[in-house]
Amino acid sequence: MEESIRFDYSHAAPFLLPDEWEPYADAVKLAHHMLHNKTGPGHEWLGWVDWPIRCDQAEVLKIKEAAAQIRHDSDVLLIIGIGGSYLGAKAVLDIVGHTFSNTLQRDRRQAPEVYFVGNQLSAGYLNHLLDIIDGKDVSINVISKSGTTIEPAIAFRLFRDYLQKKYGAAGAQKRIYATTDASTGALSKLAVEAGYPRFDIPRDIGGRFSVLTAVGLLPTAAAGGDIDALLLGAAHAHAEYRTPELQKNPCYQYAVARNLLYRKGKLIELFVGYEPQQRFFAEWWKQLFSESEGKSGQGIFPATGAFSTDLHSLGQYIQEGSRHLFETVLWVDEPESDVMIGEDPADVDGLNFLAGKGIDYVNEKAFEAALLAHVDGGVPNLVLTLPRQSAYYLGRLIYFFEKACGISGYLMGVNPFDQPGVDAYKENMFALLGKPGYEQQKMELEARINRRS
Amino acid sequence: MEESIRFDYSHAAPFLLPDEWEPYADAVKLAHHMLHNKTGPGHEWLGWVDWPIRCDQAEVLKIKEAAAQIRHDSDVLLIIGIGGSYLGAKAVLDIVGHTFSNTLQRDRRQAPEVYFVGNQLSAGYLNHLLDIIDGKDVSINVISKSGTTIEPAIAFRLFRDYLQKKYGAAGAQKRIYATTDASTGALSKLAVEAGYPRFDIPRDIGGRFSVLTAVGLLPTAAAGGDIDALLLGAAHAHAEYRTPELQKNPCYQYAVARNLLYRKGKLIELFVGYEPQQRFFAEWWKQLFSESEGKSGQGIFPATGAFSTDLHSLGQYIQEGSRHLFETVLWVDEPESDVMIGEDPADVDGLNFLAGKGIDYVNEKAFEAALLAHVDGGVPNLVLTLPRQSAYYLGRLIYFFEKACGISGYLMGVNPFDQPGVDAYKENMFALLGKPGYEQQKMELEARINRRS
Repeated sequence: MEESIRFDYSHAAPFLLPDEWEPYADAVKLAHHMLHNKTGPGHEWLGWVDWPIRCDQAEVLKIKEAAAQIRHDSDVLLIIGIGGSYLGAKAVLDIVGHTFSNTLQRDRRQAPEVYFVGNQLSAGYLNHLLDIIDGKDVSINVISKSGTTIEPAIAFRLFRDYLQKKYGAAGAQKRIYATTDASTGALSKLAVEAGYPRFDIPRDIGGRFSVLTAVGLLPTAAAGGDIDALLLGAAHAHAEYRTPELQKNPCYQYAVARNLLYRKGKLIELFVGYEPQQRFFAEWWKQLFSESEGKSGQGIFPATGAFSTDLHSLGQYIQEGSRHLFETVLWVDEPESDVMIGEDPADVDGLNFLAGKGIDYVNEKAFEAALLAHVDGGVPNLVLTLPRQSAYYLGRLIYFFEKACGISGYLMGVNPFDQPGVDAYKENMFALLGKPGYEQQKMELEARINRRS
Repeated sequence: MEESIRFDYSHAAPFLLPDEWEPYADAVKLAHHMLHNKTGPGHEWLGWVDWPIRCDQAEVLKIKEAAAQIRHDSDVLLIIGIGGSYLGAKAVLDIVGHTFSNTLQRDRRQAPEVYFVGNQLSAGYLNHLLDIIDGKDVSINVISKSGTTIEPAIAFRLFRDYLQKKYGAAGAQKRIYATTDASTGALSKLAVEAGYPRFDIPRDIGGRFSVLTAVGLLPTAAAGGDIDALLLGAAHAHAEYRTPELQKNPCYQYAVARNLLYRKGKLIELFVGYEPQQRFFAEWWKQLFSESEGKSGQGIFPATGAFSTDLHSLGQYIQEGSRHLFETVLWVDEPESDVMIGEDPADVDGLNFLAGKGIDYVNEKAFEAALLAHVDGGVPNLVLTLPRQSAYYLGRLIYFFEKACGISGYLMGVNPFDQPGVDAYKENMFALLGKPGYEQQKMELEARINRRS
C-alpha cells in the first residue's frame, strides 16, 4: 500500500487561523465543481482533470514502442520544445534519471543522451550542441501544439535538415517523432505529409498541464523512466484529491493556505527542495503557477530555491529581508541511497560527532533547522513530504500541484487556464522580425528602441 | 580600445524622473567615500574594492602553475565549496567554457571534467558523482575560509579519504589544492599539516565578493579560462567606475535606479539574460544582492530568469501579474558564433521570411520585443549591454555589480558586507545534529518539529 504525500501547514499557523479556513470551505466546493463539471472560466482546458484515469492505453503502448526504437537506434535524443512542451519533460527526466546521465557511460545509462533544444534562441548553445552530437546517431522528438512557436520551429527546421542530410529523407522520417495536435496546425500537417510517427497533445489540455500526456511521456520513456508508475501515481492522486471537502483534501488545503498567505501580504512564494535533481521540477512548478495566476494585475510571485545550496545565498534574505514571502518546502523521506560519514582521528574539522551517520541524516537536519529558523524569522513555511523520490510519487506530486493550481486560481478569481499576456511579446517579435503584415507596428516599435545610448 | 558596458535606464523612465536623481548625487558621493576610505559599516570587508589593481601577480602565477598541473594529471577536478566559494567559480566556468564541457571529448576540451560538490547535502548526488569519476584521475580544489562549514567539510572528509585510498597519502597530497585563509581556521591548519598547495582567501574579502581571488581564479584557470583577461576587465572597470559623480558613473546609476524603483514599490528585481550559459551568473548576482541588502526587514527580492526560455513560463506573470517588479536585462551585442536559418520550399512553418538570417538576429528581436512588451505592461526595464561574452567582459561585469552592490547597500542604509541572518539556521543545525554543547537547544527545537502530521 503506497502512502500519501503529506501536507503540513502547522509551521504557517500564525498566518492561518482556524476561523479563517471556514469561509473557504464553500468557495473550495464551488471551485471543485467548476473543475469537475467544467462550468468555470477556461472550462475548455480541463482535459487534465480526469486524464490519469482516461489516458489511452493504446497511446501509452505506442509511446513505449517508439521509446524502445529510439533507445535501440540512437546515441542522442534531441527534444525540441519550449514552455509546457519542455519544462515538464525536463523536470521528470532530471528526477527519474541519473544526475550526470549524459556523461555516464552508455552501457550504464542504457538510453541515449538527451538534450533539449528550441527552448531559447542562443546561437552559442546550438553550435555547442552540434559539437556534441557530431558523429552520433540522432533522433528528434519535436513537441509543439501549433508548430509555429518561433523557438522550436527554428530548431526543428535546422535539425530536420541535419537529419535529412545525414540519413536521407527516408532515414530521417523514421527518426523524427512529432508530438502535436491530432489534426490541426503546421506541425501536424508537416508530420502527416512527411510520414513522421505522431503523438497527441489533447486539444483540451494546455501546455503547462501536459506533462502526463505524450509531451512528457515519450521523452521519459526514451530516457528509461517508468511511465506506468508515473501515470499510476497520478491516478492515485486523482482518487485521493477528488473529495470536495476542504478538511479532508490536502491538495485543496495547499490552495487555500497560499491564498490566505497572499491576502496577508505574502506576495512571494519560494518553492524549495533539498535534492539538486529537483531544480527543474521547481521550474515546472513556477510556470504552472505563474502562468495560471499571474494576471489581472495580481498573483503570487513564484520563486525557487535549491537547498541547502541557496541557504548560503538567499538564506540571509529569507531570514531577515522584507517580510513579504512564504516558503513551500518539498522534502523526501527515504533517500534513494546514502553515504556514510567516516571517523577522522585528527578531527581538525570537528565533524567526528557525525561519524557513522549518513549524509541524508545531515540533510534532514538542515531541512528542520532552516524550517524553524525561517519560521522564527517571520516566514511561514508549508511543507510537502514525499515518501520517496520515484516516478510513482512524482506522478502523485504533479497531479497534486495541477489540481491545487486549478482550485487556487479559481479562489483568486482568475481564469487559471489561459495566458493572454504571453502574446504581447510574440506580436512585437513578429513585427520586429519583419513578418509580412506587421509593417506599421515594426516602424513604431523600432522608434522606441534605444540600443546605443 | 575596449568598449564599456552600456547601462540604459531609458526604459524605466516613467519611474525615474529627472528631478528624483538629483538628491541621490550627494548620497552617492558619500557612499563612494565610505567605500574608498573604508569609513562605513562593514569597512573591514572592503578588500575587493581595489583588488583588481592590487591582486598579487606572484599568486596569479602560482595559480596558473597549479592549473597546468591539474590539466596535466587529472581527468576530473572536483571543486568543493558552497555559497561564495561556489557560485562565482560556477558562474565564470559556465560562461567561459563550453556548454557541454563535461560531455565533450577530452581532446577538444583540453581540460579536466569539472564537478562541484559540497554545495548541498544530497546523498544521491554524491553517489552519482562517485559513478562518474570511477576509474578517472581526480584532483580536488577545496575552497573554504574556515574549513568548518558543514556541507564542504563533509564532502572534503569524504573525497580526501577517497584520494588517500586511491593514491596513498603522498599521492593525495599533490592532488588536493586548498583555497583558504592564510593562517587561521581548520582548513588552513589541515593544509599546513598535510602539505597541500595553498591559495589565499584574503581576510578582508567576503565570500560573495571573492570570485576574482583564488576562489574563482584557480577553477577558471584549471578549466582553461583566461584569468588574465578576467582580471584585466575588472581592472578597467575599477578605473572606469572610480568617479564619485553620479552623472558620469553608470555603475552608480544602476545602484540609484534600483533604489528609486524599490522606493516606488518595485519589491522584486528580475535579472534576466538571453544566453543559457548565463544561468549561474544570475545565481551569483542573486547571492551578491540578496545577502548584501536583505536585512533589517527590507531589501529588494532578487529573482532570475533565462530568456527566451522563461518568456514561456514567467512571461505571463511579467506581462500581467502583480505590478511590483522590475527587470534588469543583460544583453550581449556580438554573439560568439551564429547559425543561419535555411529556406524551406514548402514553408509549412511559415518561417521563410527569416531565411538567410542568423538565429542571433532572432534572439535580438526577442530581447527587443520582450523589453517593449514588458514596459508597456508596466514593468520598468534596466538594460546592461556587454559588447561580447568573454572573460574580459565578464571581469568588467563582475566588478560593475560588486561596486553597484556596495553603493546600493549604503544607499539603503544597511551594512552590505555582513550576513548575520545566515547563522540562525546553522546554529539550529548544530543543535539538531547533536553537536556537544547544544543539548538544551536540541530538546527545544525537536519539540517543535511536526514531521508526521
